[in-house]
Amino acid sequence: MAQAAAAAANGAVVDGSGKGDLKAAFIQVYSRLKSELLEDPAFDYTNESRQWIDKMLDYNVPGGKLNRGMSVIDSYKLLRQGNLLSDDEIFLGCALGWCIEWLQAYFLVLDDIMDNSHTRRGQPCWFRVPKVGLIAANDGILLRNHIPRILKKHFKGMPYYVDLLDLFNEVEFQTASGQMLDLITTHEGEQDLSKYKLPVYNRIVQYKTAYYSFYLPVACALLMSGENLENFIEVKNILVEMGTYFQIQDDYLDCFGDPAVIGKIGTDIQDFKCSWLVVQALERANESQMQILSENYGKDNETCIAKVKVLYRELHLQNVFAEYERSSYEKLISSIEAQPSKAVQDVLKSFLHKIYKRQK
Amino acid sequence: MAQAAAAAANGAVVDGSGKGDLKAAFIQVYSRLKSELLEDPAFDYTNESRQWIDKMLDYNVPGGKLNRGMSVIDSYKLLRQGNLLSDDEIFLGCALGWCIEWLQAYFLVLDDIMDNSHTRRGQPCWFRVPKVGLIAANDGILLRNHIPRILKKHFKGMPYYVDLLDLFNEVEFQTASGQMLDLITTHEGEQDLSKYKLPVYNRIVQYKTAYYSFYLPVACALLMSGENLENFIEVKNILVEMGTYFQIQDDYLDCFGDPAVIGKIGTDIQDFKCSWLVVQALERANESQMQILSENYGKDNETCIAKVKVLYRELHLQNVFAEYERSSYEKLISSIEAQPSKAVQDVLKSFLHKIYKRQK
Repeated sequence: MAQAAAAAANGAVVDGSGKGDLKAAFIQVYSRLKSELLEDPAFDYTNESRQWIDKMLDYNVPGGKLNRGMSVIDSYKLLRQGNLLSDDEIFLGCALGWCIEWLQAYFLVLDDIMDNSHTRRGQPCWFRVPKVGLIAANDGILLRNHIPRILKKHFKGMPYYVDLLDLFNEVEFQTASGQMLDLITTHEGEQDLSKYKLPVYNRIVQYKTAYYSFYLPVACALLMSGENLENFIEVKNILVEMGTYFQIQDDYLDCFGDPAVIGKIGTDIQDFKCSWLVVQALERANESQMQILSENYGKDNETCIAKVKVLYRELHLQNVFAEYERSSYEKLISSIEAQPSKAVQDVLKSFLHKIYKRQK
Repeated sequence: MAQAAAAAANGAVVDGSGKGDLKAAFIQVYSRLKSELLEDPAFDYTNESRQWIDKMLDYNVPGGKLNRGMSVIDSYKLLRQGNLLSDDEIFLGCALGWCIEWLQAYFLVLDDIMDNSHTRRGQPCWFRVPKVGLIAANDGILLRNHIPRILKKHFKGMPYYVDLLDLFNEVEFQTASGQMLDLITTHEGEQDLSKYKLPVYNRIVQYKTAYYSFYLPVACALLMSGENLENFIEVKNILVEMGTYFQIQDDYLDCFGDPAVIGKIGTDIQDFKCSWLVVQALERANESQMQILSENYGKDNETCIAKVKVLYRELHLQNVFAEYERSSYEKLISSIEAQPSKAVQDVLKSFLHKIYKRQK
């Protein structure tokens, strides 16, 4: 990586600012990882296949908010408690962050096929690009396969290499299992809305979102710091809890957020999603309200959507959410402050404050 | 595993027969692995999701010929040169074999979606089963994710554990890269048949088929025997060569084999496949024959298919194949006999004699 970017990233440790520079360093690492993959000696690329991968990566990997990826190096810096990071450490932290972005890209490319979605990150889904079509399914698999290539190139020989492989494998398994649960539940929900209950909701969110979005980045940073993950079970629980809170916010903002701020218009109601809001509504609805839900939820029709939204307001779901947000925050803060390590507390609080009361 | 099955499997070592018993042992191991996966503590299954996986595994994993899976324990026995195998060794060899069958199931489930296929192993493709649909894409991913679960449960702590993870990762990457090449080439071939050339064909087959079908089982057996794979580069080359020969047979039998013996009717011609036969035909065709190919190849129409077959006969592709088969066999035997280890020679010859002049 460029010396300047590394210096800037370190500056951020010292004066607490310079986040933008760390982001610049992170983005530089993408180009290096991509170049290395395109020259991987394990496959004899033709020019056409190399160009295909090049384009496919640029289309699918770097276009997100990069929060998950950035949080590896952010967490690692906090774990090092103000020590200057070497160029190598910064590069490795960014590389692990990119592995998470690659993992996310893999899930999104395949999820979009399964959900028959239209757009993603403001552009057509990859499988909808002309000439791509269902080749996208194999591209998703290739994205997933790039992760062990990156890990082998840069981490083979590290004492924590095998733990990294195990970690990515376990988290991918949990995410795919959560996705299965979501797919099965939504299929059944379309016949019978009463399947949408809180324990079902929590289980889907925990597996499908929380492990890879919240636990995985911190676990990567802990491994880089030489820690044994078996000693961080409570940290994992806290991060899964935070991931659940994050998804509940997402569900809330899908209906009650400002589209101008979020950058998209929610579609959970017409899509028959097992959203936290419908779960809460089903818990609180009387018989006639239940009737309204079963007649209008999951219909792609403005009147139906409006009726569901009116019902959500009647059931005061905005207050229910505000109360959930308050109590969830309190509970998280007290679990975090029970952690013996100040550095670990800082990592967890930094995560929490990034998402607490977010509007987008 | 049952003591009886292990004893029977060992019997096969002593008297050279008893292949059926080893197969019975292998099949028993499937049930155990499945039960373990359904109780995996890394995911909190609901009854419905457990039943889903149970059914999905039975539908997709064990229904093939099991040649790839069986060849791990077959190879391992030969590497041990007549030593009795312990129950544990037999179980582990079978478990690695099943990992390859899981890998194959994963590729097939996703390939069938990408190719929009109808049947597989004499039953509808998984994604065509009612209630499954595109959930099959996630099921494919779950199949892939089961492999590291099996490896972690049974091989974590073995000195070769990390090498196993690296091996499966590398071979999966190569297979997915080969599939990409095939998909891109076939798309371009539909516009321009002249893209179908022998080096392109060889590259697709090497990556898409040979690594996982031929190299992977032997590499698993070598790792179980405590060997370092870096010392077996020439063995890898021989197995890739054998895998190429195997695929060329497949392409030949698709057109010239007896459907009653093979158990299916070939469709490579109407499917516009980059088959070894069309590659050979394109190399040998004069201008008017080229015209016939470009007008009739890839059309799902009996007359067109018949015209292509007549052309193949005019170009004497049956003789071309017979000559390829003969020279390929000779070359393989001489490479095998140049191997310093008798045990390794036995493994390679056993593979070769399973496929030489096969009719199905």
